[in-house]
Amino acid sequence: MTATPAPTHIHGWGPLDRTGLTPIDGGVTAVAGIRAGGVVSGVKASGKPDLALIAADEPAGAAAVTTTNLVKASACLLTDRNTADGRAQAILINAGNANVCTPDGAAHTQRLADATARHLDVAAADVLVMSTGVIGVPLPIDRIEEALPAVVADLAPDGADRAATAMLTTDTVTKQVAFEVADEDGNRCVVAGMAKGVGMIEPAMATLLVVLTTDAPLGRPVLQQLLRQAVGVTFNRISVDGDGSTSDTVAILATGAADHPPNLDAVTRGLHAVCADLAHAVVSDGEGASRVAAITVRGASSEEDAETLARAIASSLLVRAAIHGADPNWGRILMAMGTAGVAFEPDRVSVSCGGVTVCRFGVATAFDRGQAAVAMDRPQVTIDVDLNVGPASATMLTCDLTPEYVRFNAEYTT
Amino acid sequence: MTATPAPTHIHGWGPLDRTGLTPIDGGVTAVAGIRAGGVVSGVKASGKPDLALIAADEPAGAAAVTTTNLVKASACLLTDRNTADGRAQAILINAGNANVCTPDGAAHTQRLADATARHLDVAAADVLVMSTGVIGVPLPIDRIEEALPAVVADLAPDGADRAATAMLTTDTVTKQVAFEVADEDGNRCVVAGMAKGVGMIEPAMATLLVVLTTDAPLGRPVLQQLLRQAVGVTFNRISVDGDGSTSDTVAILATGAADHPPNLDAVTRGLHAVCADLAHAVVSDGEGASRVAAITVRGASSEEDAETLARAIASSLLVRAAIHGADPNWGRILMAMGTAGVAFEPDRVSVSCGGVTVCRFGVATAFDRGQAAVAMDRPQVTIDVDLNVGPASATMLTCDLTPEYVRFNAEYTT
Repeated sequence: MTATPAPTHIHGWGPLDRTGLTPIDGGVTAVAGIRAGGVVSGVKASGKPDLALIAADEPAGAAAVTTTNLVKASACLLTDRNTADGRAQAILINAGNANVCTPDGAAHTQRLADATARHLDVAAADVLVMSTGVIGVPLPIDRIEEALPAVVADLAPDGADRAATAMLTTDTVTKQVAFEVADEDGNRCVVAGMAKGVGMIEPAMATLLVVLTTDAPLGRPVLQQLLRQAVGVTFNRISVDGDGSTSDTVAILATGAADHPPNLDAVTRGLHAVCADLAHAVVSDGEGASRVAAITVRGASSEEDAETLARAIASSLLVRAAIHGADPNWGRILMAMGTAGVAFEPDRVSVSCGGVTVCRFGVATAFDRGQAAVAMDRPQVTIDVDLNVGPASATMLTCDLTPEYVRFNAEYTT
Repeated sequence: MTATPAPTHIHGWGPLDRTGLTPIDGGVTAVAGIRAGGVVSGVKASGKPDLALIAADEPAGAAAVTTTNLVKASACLLTDRNTADGRAQAILINAGNANVCTPDGAAHTQRLADATARHLDVAAADVLVMSTGVIGVPLPIDRIEEALPAVVADLAPDGADRAATAMLTTDTVTKQVAFEVADEDGNRCVVAGMAKGVGMIEPAMATLLVVLTTDAPLGRPVLQQLLRQAVGVTFNRISVDGDGSTSDTVAILATGAADHPPNLDAVTRGLHAVCADLAHAVVSDGEGASRVAAITVRGASSEEDAETLARAIASSLLVRAAIHGADPNWGRILMAMGTAGVAFEPDRVSVSCGGVTVCRFGVATAFDRGQAAVAMDRPQVTIDVDLNVGPASATMLTCDLTPEYVRFNAEYTT
């Protein structure tokens, strides 16, 4: 499904100004010259689609950011290597097995890239690989190799849905976004993306599996820089459970096929909007989640301080359980802030939950608890903390912690 | 209830050698010259006991460590101040209201210390205060002041149970330990303690509310140093939910009344054992917990590295949910280690769950999943990670993450 737009009140998420952006259908294949497909390889025991392929007709500008987890998937290492020259042409994604902590993991990843290159008749160094699923179980590489001709045959200029479906693991919906991006002079390009991921989410530098496409003519170093900026303020500002994955990857293919591409400001707007909407979709589909909370810290001396404090609040189990209970429990919010290692003055802090000011200058206001609970009992909740010392702000998106999250992850080996 | 001893396989928890230690009854009042009591003041809506007092017959050696949370209870600040001279005589504990982020919080804490001093006829600077419960709700100080004569009248040389009960909040059991400590020459003293706390537990420097007593003749700076050492490797190595409280306090009163006190080594053994057993009792009673997990990282280059990695594992929601499901999900363990910011070599790592080796040199062993699940489906679970690079080790105690924890904290304002 197409992701609903990220809330407009998000602070510090980059240019969320949507001027010149028009939502369009087609996901990653909304970009001309990009084909996608998805098939069943048999890696998932469920028999659901689990092998996706995205291919550009010609070698494209490429960039990627991958996980900072020290235990790093061999797919991430290969993707780092194969985007170092700023060029790529295809992305193979297998779901159901992360190929992490496995015998011959790196060799298997290389074999997948080599085989994909042969079937597509492209250079092996222009193939990226993403793998997601259980850690520590040997990759059934034979099944994937046998399914490769089928996924190549499935490639189509309208195949984004099938690819977006085949990359899922515990996700309940696909996550796709595409915009036509225009600048003031009417020059146009398309920026699009798809994502998977609902658990083990506290990205650091990169996150989840995300494929972005555009026909804007961008190459290194600009493309890598734009990608890093957009990811830094969107995917890196979400958290489902504070657990950072071994396989986080965001990769972009830029075909450069746009006839009259817009200026860099417009492309940047488009890229940020795609990343923001996909990041929002990931949190909305967070494991067990019943609501999304946008946690904003403002009035900070620096954006870094604001982000650190917002992350501490978003990472607190007690805060997230209170959000589940629609409980305007601002004492837990100050508790979480106090452990973040950032200096602030508790007696200058104001807190509002669901728009109701519950704490001013560090002490309770005479708020109506029932009214605040009603304001929090919604699918989208805002928590606003004002430090009242400076001009900087940042927003983290998280979801509530629910009994369903625990039950699910007690029973499911990922 | 008397805490069951902490597991003997705990690494890096200091001298858990129990030579010369004999468990005795009596809790904190097992030390001669210490009286305790507990009554109902009406601060807890439930009408349960909520005001405790511990008093020494004479001014005693005293030391305390309190929370490092930036949002720090005024009770912690007063306790820091009043132990600075190494001397104290009484500890007033109120439960049901933490008096944090409240108007006039500091003035109210001082009023409690002053009133306690008047009723006991001791110096106000020799009274410590601990407050625990909801944050941000004004302290009903009148009720506590009115109940002070009753709790003073309740003081008795066998009153430890009543004090240990009156300090509880969401705890399901009291937590008390006492040892007679003897050295090789037959010299003896008593070291005892009581604790409360089952949620908002990831202590840093100090933790929860803990009262320790001894008749060993210890004063500053030795007493403060011994306390800090013991707390650093026991209470600071437990985690229920990663949320660090605003009110953590461990305080000790040392009466010095032992006629032939044992040597410092024996006293240190006793103090460590009391702290270890109380810390274990806190985790065992963790909110919603169905099992305790001792997470040991060994084979590290330094104890600091081992502790950081063990803490990252113990803080992972996905690991703790897997422990609840008795799932030997070692992939999540490596994932959590990889985010800790500590260098290690994934392909040298071995992991065992419940004594079953499930990962060796970074890849899965041919373990029997059913056997491992049975080994983990116990009230006490061990997870052992060997980095295979050095001699250092550390153990963190945590409990499983359960749907009950979430339900409880979604419904309860603390």
